[in-house]
Amino acid sequence: MNKILSNVVIHKDYSKDIVRVLRSSKSDELIRRKLSKYHENDIADAIKLLDKDTRIRLYKILGVDWTAEIFSYLEDTPEYIEEFMTELSVDEAADVLEKMDADDAVDILDNVSEEERQALISHMEKDAKDDVCLIYSYDDDEIGSKMTTNFICINNKLTIKEAMKELVAQAEENDNVNTIYVVDDNNIYYGAIDLKDLIVARDYQKLEDIISTSYPYVYAHEKMSECIEDLKDYSEDSIPVLNKDKEIIGAITSSDIIEAVDEEMSDDYAKLAGLTEENDLTEGLFASMKKRLPWLILLLFLGMGVSSVVGIFENVVSQLAIIVCFQSLILDMAGNVGTQSLAVTIRVLMDEDISAKQKLEFVLKEMRIGFANGLLLGSMAFILLGIYITLVKGKPVHYAFAISGCVGVSLLLAMLISSLIGVLTPMFFHKIKIDPAVASGPLITTINDLVAVVTYYGLAAVVLIGMLHITG
Amino acid sequence: MNKILSNVVIHKDYSKDIVRVLRSSKSDELIRRKLSKYHENDIADAIKLLDKDTRIRLYKILGVDWTAEIFSYLEDTPEYIEEFMTELSVDEAADVLEKMDADDAVDILDNVSEEERQALISHMEKDAKDDVCLIYSYDDDEIGSKMTTNFICINNKLTIKEAMKELVAQAEENDNVNTIYVVDDNNIYYGAIDLKDLIVARDYQKLEDIISTSYPYVYAHEKMSECIEDLKDYSEDSIPVLNKDKEIIGAITSSDIIEAVDEEMSDDYAKLAGLTEENDLTEGLFASMKKRLPWLILLLFLGMGVSSVVGIFENVVSQLAIIVCFQSLILDMAGNVGTQSLAVTIRVLMDEDISAKQKLEFVLKEMRIGFANGLLLGSMAFILLGIYITLVKGKPVHYAFAISGCVGVSLLLAMLISSLIGVLTPMFFHKIKIDPAVASGPLITTINDLVAVVTYYGLAAVVLIGMLHITG
Repeated sequence: MNKILSNVVIHKDYSKDIVRVLRSSKSDELIRRKLSKYHENDIADAIKLLDKDTRIRLYKILGVDWTAEIFSYLEDTPEYIEEFMTELSVDEAADVLEKMDADDAVDILDNVSEEERQALISHMEKDAKDDVCLIYSYDDDEIGSKMTTNFICINNKLTIKEAMKELVAQAEENDNVNTIYVVDDNNIYYGAIDLKDLIVARDYQKLEDIISTSYPYVYAHEKMSECIEDLKDYSEDSIPVLNKDKEIIGAITSSDIIEAVDEEMSDDYAKLAGLTEENDLTEGLFASMKKRLPWLILLLFLGMGVSSVVGIFENVVSQLAIIVCFQSLILDMAGNVGTQSLAVTIRVLMDEDISAKQKLEFVLKEMRIGFANGLLLGSMAFILLGIYITLVKGKPVHYAFAISGCVGVSLLLAMLISSLIGVLTPMFFHKIKIDPAVASGPLITTINDLVAVVTYYGLAAVVLIGMLHITG
Repeated sequence: MNKILSNVVIHKDYSKDIVRVLRSSKSDELIRRKLSKYHENDIADAIKLLDKDTRIRLYKILGVDWTAEIFSYLEDTPEYIEEFMTELSVDEAADVLEKMDADDAVDILDNVSEEERQALISHMEKDAKDDVCLIYSYDDDEIGSKMTTNFICINNKLTIKEAMKELVAQAEENDNVNTIYVVDDNNIYYGAIDLKDLIVARDYQKLEDIISTSYPYVYAHEKMSECIEDLKDYSEDSIPVLNKDKEIIGAITSSDIIEAVDEEMSDDYAKLAGLTEENDLTEGLFASMKKRLPWLILLLFLGMGVSSVVGIFENVVSQLAIIVCFQSLILDMAGNVGTQSLAVTIRVLMDEDISAKQKLEFVLKEMRIGFANGLLLGSMAFILLGIYITLVKGKPVHYAFAISGCVGVSLLLAMLISSLIGVLTPMFFHKIKIDPAVASGPLITTINDLVAVVTYYGLAAVVLIGMLHITG
């Protein structure tokens, strides 16, 4: 067999190869050997395609350690977790959980029934159980709930040689070795050592010289969403997590950060689209409905409010029916401009700490953009619609350009005001500590609709009908 | 001084402290010592607040290595790069670039003028220059353009002891030590060793036993967007990047993956909001306008198309002006449902490879959701608007419920069709290899508007006016 072919190229599906290995009735030893050529992530994908009996046989062949590693990769497809876990006896399942990083074990436990969870936790040995309980003691949005308890920690008074020995001893249990955390005699966080520096250090050097006392840390009770930008910026392999007494209780690794970035962005994305959270491909009809209904129902009621305002202009419409044609144009443009400003503002509010002065500058800039774009598009609408109404509808030129002028001015005003609303609404919600991505969407659509409708029909009523006496 | 306070807690702004250190006229040595208590990321933030002269003095105090580390953190605020780089002489700047990881150097070079870039590259020493040119030889969306050339690589025939020695030798130059890549005698990728396994290995063990030959890899010419999901799923610290001959030419680290995830999601997010790309806080007015105008202009023309369709129903409106009140309600609801389906579909298409059968199931599910939500909201609109028109507008009950019935049925139909369009449009663009996130937005808004308008006014014309003879 060509050795090279056994490497795993990203972006290829190995599941079928693996299933073929398992379905062949080779000896356990041969299966183990063949499977060792595949990455655990690929084996995790493959076992989803197996029937229950083959899977149960496989768990025995693999043993607890290997099964634990494979189950750590189930996180992305949580819908399989409960099924797989119940295929193991409670004792076996608890053993598998003990072998996993505590945060991965929590991910698994989050996806089994309450009853099963209690049973599994009570069957775990004390150390692993304590770690799981520590992670569970934090709220979902706190750093502590995302951390791993798998890290290396040494005293700052050791020699280089002692430090290396301590590392080797701890590495058996904890495989996050890239950054070694350092505490002082009171067990208080002191700094961190880049493993590379320890490896290249000479025995006569002092440990102190390679400890980075400026290494960043984070508190377990802090909110993930507030730290994520900074965690990203420091671009370290792992960041120590401290309790209130400055003792190290865990670590945030770069894969935790990847997950958090992904989650946070998915969340913003979903909310911008009017979903309460991101969809899963496999979730049921009602789960999907539930994520979409809140906004739709709110929008229905707000829309009824807009309808009653449009109702005020019923009279205008019955006198000058042609203006109805351009209502959707103005509303769509205003809506789009508002969404653009909203999206930009939310990302700015999330990403950076900006001062009051910067906020004001930002608002003014958004308004300038709205005005400039409005002026351009309003002028285009004035000219193009004027020509269209004259030629296609066969109306007199002064009538056509009066109508298109009304559309153009309304576009400019609606786009200017929509930019302002699109930037002020999320800022307001951010100020009063409500997630702007959730709250802003339907409100902005509605306010923009109202502004656009009132501007447009108001202008038509006052200028076209009232002053120019245009009807029909 | 309390030692502990010198650690860097995430999510705190140290810039002012650092600036204070620099502005005080202490000796160079004292400044160096004080600055060593801060993280390079924080120093990078701080130097933005300094005046040019202080900064130039600082570069001298810090030296080339430290300056290079700090400049690696400028990536997030590229607007400062050109200014800072020109404060150094070409020779100094080239020295700084040589000390950086090649991919970080490329990030810096991307943000200076063409002329300056050529000058800097020509002043770099051969090794560093070659690395930079290698990265530049790949397209922006190819893996090769994101990789670092900083990795450790050893032969698979070494003993454990030799491997450790080789690691220490290479670690001086390359600090990505967490995963050691392994090649065979022909310099072809063979596998990888987890540094932890090498550290805990006994001298009598064979290196072969700790090499993971199933370690995943990726080709330099592959597209980042196509690999990102897999790179994430394997959750390894770094992934080797191979050329066509299967030789290792670089590595993708977890911070590269974090950046790529962030970029990809930001892109989708921006496009959903009708922006061609994500905004920067600091960019100019015209840059911001340019990102927003393409969609707005397209939407203006499409909106004119919708207007001319509404024009067909001018007659209906002049006979039954009250129905105009509910146009925005129906269009907003249809638009929102379409955006929800669009957003969900784009994420599904990006995230997963799904089969034709799964696609069909997905379309059917979206339609079921659209129908169920439409039925619920249509019924609510029927009842509530009926009551509203009777009580507030003082119209007869049969008139009120005929109008609200027309609104309710239009809502149901518009929401059903919008779901279908919201899922089919991105699938179509995906099929013909056009980015669905870019192309779908304005088209969906327009089609949904058209469908909603035709359904609503059509129903009003045929049923209300034609069959029930309701006018006024």
